[in-house]
Amino acid sequence: MPDTPSSQPRTVVYTQRVEFGDCDPARIVWFPNFFRWIDATSRHFFIQCGVPPWHETEKSTGLIGTPLVDTHARFVKTASYGDTLQIHAHVAEWRDKSYVQRYRIQRENPDGSVDLIMECDEVRIFAVHREDGKGIRAIPIPADIRALCS
Amino acid sequence: MPDTPSSQPRTVVYTQRVEFGDCDPARIVWFPNFFRWIDATSRHFFIQCGVPPWHETEKSTGLIGTPLVDTHARFVKTASYGDTLQIHAHVAEWRDKSYVQRYRIQRENPDGSVDLIMECDEVRIFAVHREDGKGIRAIPIPADIRALCS
Amino acid sequence: MPDTPSSQPRTVVYTQRVEFGDCDPARIVWFPNFFRWIDATSRHFFIQCGVPPWHETEKSTGLIGTPLVDTHARFVKTASYGDTLQIHAHVAEWRDKSYVQRYRIQRENPDGSVDLIMECDEVRIFAVHREDGKGIRAIPIPADIRALCS
Amino acid sequence: MPDTPSSQPRTVVYTQRVEFGDCDPARIVWFPNFFRWIDATSRHFFIQCGVPPWHETEKSTGLIGTPLVDTHARFVKTASYGDTLQIHAHVAEWRDKSYVQRYRIQRENPDGSVDLIMECDEVRIFAVHREDGKGIRAIPIPADIRALCS
Repeated sequence: MPDTPSSQPRTVVYTQRVEFGDCDPARIVWFPNFFRWIDATSRHFFIQCGVPPWHETEKSTGLIGTPLVDTHARFVKTASYGDTLQIHAHVAEWRDKSYVQRYRIQRENPDGSVDLIMECDEVRIFAVHREDGKGIRAIPIPADIRALCS
Repeated sequence: MPDTPSSQPRTVVYTQRVEFGDCDPARIVWFPNFFRWIDATSRHFFIQCGVPPWHETEKSTGLIGTPLVDTHARFVKTASYGDTLQIHAHVAEWRDKSYVQRYRIQRENPDGSVDLIMECDEVRIFAVHREDGKGIRAIPIPADIRALCS
Repeated sequence: MPDTPSSQPRTVVYTQRVEFGDCDPARIVWFPNFFRWIDATSRHFFIQCGVPPWHETEKSTGLIGTPLVDTHARFVKTASYGDTLQIHAHVAEWRDKSYVQRYRIQRENPDGSVDLIMECDEVRIFAVHREDGKGIRAIPIPADIRALCS
Repeated sequence: MPDTPSSQPRTVVYTQRVEFGDCDPARIVWFPNFFRWIDATSRHFFIQCGVPPWHETEKSTGLIGTPLVDTHARFVKTASYGDTLQIHAHVAEWRDKSYVQRYRIQRENPDGSVDLIMECDEVRIFAVHREDGKGIRAIPIPADIRALCS
C-alpha cells in the first residue's frame, strides 16, 4: 500500500513580482533573473520547512548553504514586468551527498488561467568550508534537515 | 573522408573578470552571474562571427535575438573575485528552428594550470516579435548566420 | 494659510525581502541592489497612484518611463539576508521637466523597533524616444500623472 | 609653488563592455548596473594602486572592504549594448575616517569623440567587522593605503 506522505513531498511556493529592470531590450525577463529567483526560492524552501538560516548553521554546524552542482531548466513561456510569478519547489530526490530540487514557475493570469513559464531541476549539495580554507566541500545530507523537508 | 573544417566548429572566447559584488556570503560566485556571462558570450559569439547586433537585425529582418529555450549547466569548481575567466563558446548542433550552443568556463591560474569551472549546453532559437504584438516566436535558422558561425 | 493636502504628499510603500544572493562576501546587501529596489519602487509608485504601465503609455502617448537624471543616497545601516525592508516613496518636488522622488528604506525589527537603512533623493524625467531614433528626451510633466501622484 | 604630484591624484581607468542584459526595455543601460561597475572600479582602484585584495587584508588586518556611506551620481547621456565604457576613478578627498572617490564614466565613440555618460562622487569608509559580530564599523584611513593611492 503506498505511503501517502512520500507521494506528497513538501512543497513551498515563493511569490515574485517581475520588475521593469528584470526585463531586457526584448521586453521579456532576462533569463539569468529566473535563476536569481530560483536561488531565493531554494533558500526559502528550507526556511519554510523550519531549517535555520545559513549564517546560523555556519556557526552551529559549519553548514554555509546549498551550492548548485547541476541545473537543467526549460523555458516555456516568456514573462514581463507587471507579471507576478509563483515558484513551486520541492525535493524530488534525496541522494547520499546531494539532492534534486524541482521548481515550476507559473503565472496566474487575470482571467484565472495559469501559464507555465519555466521548469527547473537542480542538483545541490550541503556545503562547508574546506579545512584548508580553500573552497568548499559537500557533506552527507543532514538527517534533521531531510526530515524537515520531506 | 571527413571535412576538417566541420570538425573544428568556430569557437569564440569571452574574457570575464570576477568582481567582489559577483560573489555571495559564501565568498564564491553567486551562480546566476555565470548565466549573465554566458548570455553575454552568446551575443559576442555572433558579433565575433560577423553577425550585426540585434538592434540592427531587428530593423532589417525583425530578428530580436536568440532567447533561451533550455539550458543545462554543470558546476565543477568555484570561482571568486580576483579570478579571470575564459568562456569558450561554439555551436555544437544546428537544428531546424533551434541550435545548441556549448560553453566551457575556464580559469587560467597563476601557475599556468587551467581549472574547469563550469560547462553549459543551451538550446536557443532565433526570435522575432509575434505579429499580434504578444510575445515572440522562433524562425528557421537564418542561412547567412549559420554560414558565418559554423 | 498652508494647504493641508500639500503637506501630506501621496506615499507608497514597497516591501522587499533581502535574499542570500543580494549580499556580498561582507555578508551585507551589495549596494547596487538597493538601487534595483528603488527603481522597482519608482515604478510601483506610479502603478499604485493609478498610472498605466509604461508599455501601455508607450503606445498611447510615447512615454517610455522615468529615467534617472541624478541620485543622491545616504547609507545609514547595513541590511542582510532574512531582513524585510519597507521602501517609502513620495514626490518631494515637481519641476517643469523633472521631479524629485524621495525614498526611505526602513527595516522593522522583530522587537518592533525600526531601523533607517538608507535615504535617497532622485531627480527623474518623463521620457520619450527621440524622433530620430537616437536616445531619449524629456517631456513636460504630464498634468494627469502629476494630479494622480500628488 | 604648487606641488605637481598633489595636483595630479592617482587615477585608474576601468573598462567595461555594455551587454544586452545590462539594458532595460527602453534599450538603455538600467542604471543600477552603473553602480555595479562603479563598485568594481572602486576595488580595482585599490588593486591597481597595489593594495592587497580584501580577503587578504581581512586575514592580516581585519579590513573587509570599503563600504559606501553616501553616493551622488549625475546621469548625462545614455549608453546601450555594444558600447564600451571607460570609468576613470581617483580619490578627490581624504578625511579622517572616510574618503571621497570620484568617478567619470566616458564612452569613446567610433569617430574619436568622447561622451560623458555619468559622474559620481562617493563617500566610503574602510570597514572591519564589529567585535560583537553584529555589523561593521569604520576605522581610520590606513596610512599605507593612503600613501599608495594618492
